[in-house]
Amino acid sequence: MGTPLTDVAIAQAHTLEPITDIAARAGIPPQALITYGPDKAKVDITRLPPGRSRGRLVLVTGISPTPAGEGKSTVLIGLADALRRLGHRSAAALREPSQGPVMGIKGGAAGGGHSQIVPMEEINLHFTGDFHAIAAATNTLAALVDNHVHQGNVLGIDSRRIVWQRCLDVSDRSLRDIVTGLGGPAHGTPRETGFTITAASEIMAVLCLATDLADLKHRLGRLTVAFTFDDDPVTAGDLGATGALAALLKQAINPNLVQTLGGTPAYVHGGPFANIAHGCNSLIATKIALQHSEIVLTEAGFGSDLGAEKFFDITARYGRLDVHGAVVVATIRSLKFNGGMPREELTREDLHHLQAGVKNLARHLSNIQQFGVKPVVAVNLFTRDTPAEREFMRAWARDFRVPLAEVEVWAKGGAGAEDLARTVLAHLSEGATRLYDPAQGVEKSIETIARRIYRATRVEYTPKALRDLAVIRRRGWDRLPVCISKTPYSFSDDPTRLGAPSGHTLHVRELIPRTGAGFIVALTGSVMTMPGLPDHPAADHIDIDENGRISGLF
Amino acid sequence: MGTPLTDVAIAQAHTLEPITDIAARAGIPPQALITYGPDKAKVDITRLPPGRSRGRLVLVTGISPTPAGEGKSTVLIGLADALRRLGHRSAAALREPSQGPVMGIKGGAAGGGHSQIVPMEEINLHFTGDFHAIAAATNTLAALVDNHVHQGNVLGIDSRRIVWQRCLDVSDRSLRDIVTGLGGPAHGTPRETGFTITAASEIMAVLCLATDLADLKHRLGRLTVAFTFDDDPVTAGDLGATGALAALLKQAINPNLVQTLGGTPAYVHGGPFANIAHGCNSLIATKIALQHSEIVLTEAGFGSDLGAEKFFDITARYGRLDVHGAVVVATIRSLKFNGGMPREELTREDLHHLQAGVKNLARHLSNIQQFGVKPVVAVNLFTRDTPAEREFMRAWARDFRVPLAEVEVWAKGGAGAEDLARTVLAHLSEGATRLYDPAQGVEKSIETIARRIYRATRVEYTPKALRDLAVIRRRGWDRLPVCISKTPYSFSDDPTRLGAPSGHTLHVRELIPRTGAGFIVALTGSVMTMPGLPDHPAADHIDIDENGRISGLF
Repeated sequence: MGTPLTDVAIAQAHTLEPITDIAARAGIPPQALITYGPDKAKVDITRLPPGRSRGRLVLVTGISPTPAGEGKSTVLIGLADALRRLGHRSAAALREPSQGPVMGIKGGAAGGGHSQIVPMEEINLHFTGDFHAIAAATNTLAALVDNHVHQGNVLGIDSRRIVWQRCLDVSDRSLRDIVTGLGGPAHGTPRETGFTITAASEIMAVLCLATDLADLKHRLGRLTVAFTFDDDPVTAGDLGATGALAALLKQAINPNLVQTLGGTPAYVHGGPFANIAHGCNSLIATKIALQHSEIVLTEAGFGSDLGAEKFFDITARYGRLDVHGAVVVATIRSLKFNGGMPREELTREDLHHLQAGVKNLARHLSNIQQFGVKPVVAVNLFTRDTPAEREFMRAWARDFRVPLAEVEVWAKGGAGAEDLARTVLAHLSEGATRLYDPAQGVEKSIETIARRIYRATRVEYTPKALRDLAVIRRRGWDRLPVCISKTPYSFSDDPTRLGAPSGHTLHVRELIPRTGAGFIVALTGSVMTMPGLPDHPAADHIDIDENGRISGLF
Repeated sequence: MGTPLTDVAIAQAHTLEPITDIAARAGIPPQALITYGPDKAKVDITRLPPGRSRGRLVLVTGISPTPAGEGKSTVLIGLADALRRLGHRSAAALREPSQGPVMGIKGGAAGGGHSQIVPMEEINLHFTGDFHAIAAATNTLAALVDNHVHQGNVLGIDSRRIVWQRCLDVSDRSLRDIVTGLGGPAHGTPRETGFTITAASEIMAVLCLATDLADLKHRLGRLTVAFTFDDDPVTAGDLGATGALAALLKQAINPNLVQTLGGTPAYVHGGPFANIAHGCNSLIATKIALQHSEIVLTEAGFGSDLGAEKFFDITARYGRLDVHGAVVVATIRSLKFNGGMPREELTREDLHHLQAGVKNLARHLSNIQQFGVKPVVAVNLFTRDTPAEREFMRAWARDFRVPLAEVEVWAKGGAGAEDLARTVLAHLSEGATRLYDPAQGVEKSIETIARRIYRATRVEYTPKALRDLAVIRRRGWDRLPVCISKTPYSFSDDPTRLGAPSGHTLHVRELIPRTGAGFIVALTGSVMTMPGLPDHPAADHIDIDENGRISGLF
């Protein structure tokens, strides 16, 4: 027995099928395929014949994330391959990895082991350029705002109230808080601003919620970039920037098509943040997948409280998506951590902490059920999970009448998820519902989510948040759905309260209207929208040889 | 007669040949072709069989640029098509347009009229992502430098002496002078810095001078990013960043292949500044074109004093290129402007100003001859040029025994440059030479260029430049070739001295070692490395319709 292969080594040892074959398998007509080399492509949405959704849509989500890791994407990819092994025309719809973390902490994000999407080096490094195009649009808009002020400021923009930030797909703490426009009057007006990572740009959210090019332009035109001295909002449309921004996104709006190691078509497109944005791959990708596949698996960032709730209430609402099933991914290690077991002891068998932690899983299942979907539990096995722990989980599921399947996707790929595939197929249903009606207003929508999903007893607003709420009402934005930014680690807004807390108070600090994306972000804690690099960045280990072979991605 | 079509309308009315056919015409084997959609491709340098240069290389340069415009790229493209019409296997090797000016002043840069490279919208907007990849590498390196300081600063970097700047492919004056790292100790160390446009990043120059992946890594590792408290230079290699930067450039180093409207293969790759850098497309693209074509046309930024001199002394030296011919592009309008005629009067016939201005052309021809190449004059005709003006030029050329051909490439494409093509073919020669030997040291090299090319009598150094020179000698960088940054509008360092000034003094203000690219930049004036947007940016007019059709690019 040798040492286990790294993800990049497994991916590089694999012989990929031509992307034209994958496209044929996915039902994409050749005239709508824009190939990017032999194994990547974009689907040209302007050349795709109109179609209706024919597939079943299954959401893959997870328990509250822990440092132990759950492997949500890896399970999704393995499940897609398992469905294909069982004779179903399956497809995966996933987010694109962000290059900042690739160079920083993660070193790559495209599944793992024998459940990966490939070519993983290309997907992790630039891919088809979508993130760069989104950054170009974001930064062009920023330049147009500052230029407007510089060139006479006809609109009367208050340069202290320019809210549009620049972005880059890099982890760079030094760009969080900056002063631009220094050096004298020829170089703009000095002001405080900052960069976010590209995934946090509102244009990322816009691209991922747009239904076509016309809707994209509509949303881009609505982006709020600044306020005037008279306190009126200024939009990208007011600046005449809509057309140029949309032109910059011409290719980025077309979904990317790649393959899993098992040869399943994978649409990998868009990657918005899962707290300050809705955290799902593009609606266009999911809809195209549903038009051409029998069963489509998509994921939402973090657990049922963040990703899944936003998936149902924002993504599925804007896209008029039917959702037919859900998978909640858990690991025994992660459940023990949620039950209070210290991180360094997680490899030890411990039914006591497992029993405590399984409450977290139960809460996520109950949340999913509120959307009218029957959740299935996927226990993603690790080598150190003991027979007693596994039996505990199976017994728990029987007692609570929850369908559960163990998976071994890292080591076995699709072959390790056939049980899960059969379980998912047996529990498909019709007609998912939304949790709330945005017409009830932002305050009421927040309260509904807080009570029913987070199990909070009250919602408290800071004076700043109350002022924001008044502004939102006055400007007619009160009927937009809400996107609550909350720690993923707890159902409460306190990241240390693991398990399944209830009876707490949700603290709303600030409300940020995202008029382009079409939701109101409610901040319940401080959110870092620009990561920093760690002490030993992943970049240290990344290399390329003279034949173009990349190493050091995990 | 309708109004003349815009460039984008002409380009969109054209039916492109499949890029696979163009690649076959160019002699690129299919296994080395990475297609980006039906009409763009990259040539995978790791899959190209080794070959030797078999083609003749012709440099296209121009007279001193004026606001009237010369149309150097347009002539190059028309000439490439004309050579093909005459039965020669020609290819063009050009720079990629920068997106900042596309959104700002220019609105597009890929030739014009019936002499364009296509697909022009794609080439002007993101193309194959090279500029974004270069920005990603540049900004990743910046993040790694700041992170090194933040995480303990083992190398002892003096954060006041970090010389590595970030970049973006956007025109944004507000990013020229900024302060980063604000917001407290968790967010880095406050310091003054700035962004350049991507074309001005040293990594752009590195990519364009690298001969293969190994040489790329070698040059990246040598990039100077900062100085320590002990005044020692810190390189990208010292930071362990070389491999990650090269991996980010894996695709960017592969030349892009597109086509002209006449179906001629065009390698469009890289785009460094022509004053603070060497201003030529990538060496790899030119070398690949020379291996597979009979005659290759390449351009260098601005006139003989900037682009051509750097082409011979930096690009051709590092690439061991033989140069067999040169075309100097002029327009009658532009010559009149160089002869002192006010811009608003240029459409009026004026032989007096033309006679005065033609000295500028003569000087450029004399400069080119110093490199052992026989220059050909291309007069790019405008509709307002009068018969008398045209006859003046022809007579002048006869008197001075200079081969001259008129071209009408905007209106007629290759058919309008067949005379020029025959003239160029009749004046090919062997064995271009370099102007100086860098081993003589930076000071002597600058003096040689100043005297022989700029026709200055003396070179004066500021105290700062003298200190820089001492440092360059001490650090062993004194044998690098020099890259003089000078106004393109005059042979002197005073942009108002048009025509053919001589006897002036060249003022060297500062010397900047570019240890990665491998040259010493000598600044003789202030150089703007980040443009601003104009009062009415081109972005105002750019649009895309619901079928993905782009308008508003010129």
